[in-house]
Amino acid sequence: MKRINLKELANLLNLSTSSVSKALRDSHEISEETKKKVREFAVKHNYSPNPYATSLRKKKSKTIAVILPEVADNYFSLAINGIQKVAEARGYHLLIYLSHEKYSIEKAVLEECSNGRVDGVLISISSETTDHSHLQKLVNENIPLVFFDRAPEDFNASKVITNDYDCGYFTAMHLIEDGCTNPVFLSMSSALPICHRRAEGFKAAVLATGIASDPNKLVHYCDGTEEESMKKIQELFESKNRPDGVVASVERLAIQTYMVAQESEINIPKEVKVIAFSTLETAPILNPPLSTITQPAYDTGTKAAELLFQRIEKPLQYTQPECVVLPSIFMERKSCIPKSHFS
Amino acid sequence: MKRINLKELANLLNLSTSSVSKALRDSHEISEETKKKVREFAVKHNYSPNPYATSLRKKKSKTIAVILPEVADNYFSLAINGIQKVAEARGYHLLIYLSHEKYSIEKAVLEECSNGRVDGVLISISSETTDHSHLQKLVNENIPLVFFDRAPEDFNASKVITNDYDCGYFTAMHLIEDGCTNPVFLSMSSALPICHRRAEGFKAAVLATGIASDPNKLVHYCDGTEEESMKKIQELFESKNRPDGVVASVERLAIQTYMVAQESEINIPKEVKVIAFSTLETAPILNPPLSTITQPAYDTGTKAAELLFQRIEKPLQYTQPECVVLPSIFMERKSCIPKSHFS
Repeated sequence: MKRINLKELANLLNLSTSSVSKALRDSHEISEETKKKVREFAVKHNYSPNPYATSLRKKKSKTIAVILPEVADNYFSLAINGIQKVAEARGYHLLIYLSHEKYSIEKAVLEECSNGRVDGVLISISSETTDHSHLQKLVNENIPLVFFDRAPEDFNASKVITNDYDCGYFTAMHLIEDGCTNPVFLSMSSALPICHRRAEGFKAAVLATGIASDPNKLVHYCDGTEEESMKKIQELFESKNRPDGVVASVERLAIQTYMVAQESEINIPKEVKVIAFSTLETAPILNPPLSTITQPAYDTGTKAAELLFQRIEKPLQYTQPECVVLPSIFMERKSCIPKSHFS
Repeated sequence: MKRINLKELANLLNLSTSSVSKALRDSHEISEETKKKVREFAVKHNYSPNPYATSLRKKKSKTIAVILPEVADNYFSLAINGIQKVAEARGYHLLIYLSHEKYSIEKAVLEECSNGRVDGVLISISSETTDHSHLQKLVNENIPLVFFDRAPEDFNASKVITNDYDCGYFTAMHLIEDGCTNPVFLSMSSALPICHRRAEGFKAAVLATGIASDPNKLVHYCDGTEEESMKKIQELFESKNRPDGVVASVERLAIQTYMVAQESEINIPKEVKVIAFSTLETAPILNPPLSTITQPAYDTGTKAAELLFQRIEKPLQYTQPECVVLPSIFMERKSCIPKSHFS
């Protein structure tokens, strides 16, 4: 049975739409008898209010936007699950947008998020995003905004991030302790703060040990298409100065490193050791099992959603931006065992 | 700068909201001079129409719902990318809902999809869904509905699926040709039509070769939690009658089969051969590389979205349900090579 709208319901009852509306909201202006009749008709004819009309009246869309670079990365899948759990418990809907790592899409999406379409925005910025005016515009319109994982360095808003610099430092130290003398860091973007912090930590550790002196040769940027990125890793592996240790800043680059090594018959970990920033589910069953810096993806999603709902529900109480740092953990597997452990 | 609404704009201009609204829509009822003045004020004061008010007027939400069991499975990530490409080109938004394989959530979500919140629904049903009244309700309300990948067998609506039965048949034949004498099929659900069709094809092939006579022993159901499912596979591998070939109906079960085999030190493919229905990106770099029946996930997403938009945009022209079958392809890798090929 087709649902009927307010006007059709009013016609059936021979009342004005305003009287029917008031009756449904249990207004004292309407007699009990009429209210009873209206309610009975509403149930009988399958009437339920249009959510957009309800949104207009209440000035709440009961929807939040989640803006992500992609969903194919396991990190974002897990983060979405965390966000959804919190949103569902509050009766909110998720409008999920993918920027596909493009600044232009991210900007267009944020433009759509104003005007009352959503009550708040959770965002992990694209690898191209350096200009922040589109984010500032949202803040100026008093739409609550919380970053998760990928947050701009110099933007004053709440965020939930992880200890990227420390983890970058740790990966370099670990590779060097395992016997690497020429480790490199594969970054997916020079602009993206998470990659930048991870790379900075990595460089600081390598320089501190004295095994390298030129910081510019430690970080390689794989910021093009998948094909370009594979080619770059291939060239690196074929170069005279072939690295004996690789830290992949994101899951995609770890997969590509494995694929290139497999094609080129380069043995991991004998010829090159690999550590990746990744929550990849298949890490333990790869050939060889992949050592990972595992980010707290699900918890980051729930925490970011909680911060956002505080700001949506109690805007006067939560006025100051908050920065929450949830630490990542190291999962050591065979892709980076020391030489003495080779069987 | 905060955006202003129609009423505030009208007050500033000392005009009625209806005149301002007409002026903005370039109505012939309004003088050119007034229209110019209204447009200038609108730009100056950062006015833009409320999307929900616009939706009410046009009776279009410009939003479609995509209902999926989960996003952690690579298949759904790819399908979302396909759907988004088509939706974006038409200026539509995606409201993505996850059922987490629960019928109760799926039902509640569909309830939310009526009332004009969305113009159409793309759905891949949960593994628990056997009752279809929640789907019928949507159809009765004239909300266009298209299934992708997971569609009920006996429900009359458009769908984009793959050749599940044929692929199930193929996997059994392939394992038997590779030397398996005791192959089994791991199903994630007895209710889910895709798993049912894949299992039926598998059983038909095994019975046709005569290597087994009891069809009930060929399919094993791993429909519980991840832990329960791992335990079931473990028991199967420890049983007297250990299978020498496994077909995993979904990506998750392939990953679990690998994990159990790794823990139990069972060699794939020497002791057990594995083929999975999966679009897993890491399939080529697993230990060993995983043979897959690779479904056309991205194309299924785009095709399903195209069918949906035909029905949204030209409801009078597209009245008959359409069933599109996009074939899957077999990617042979080391997890199922014949005995003679072992090095």
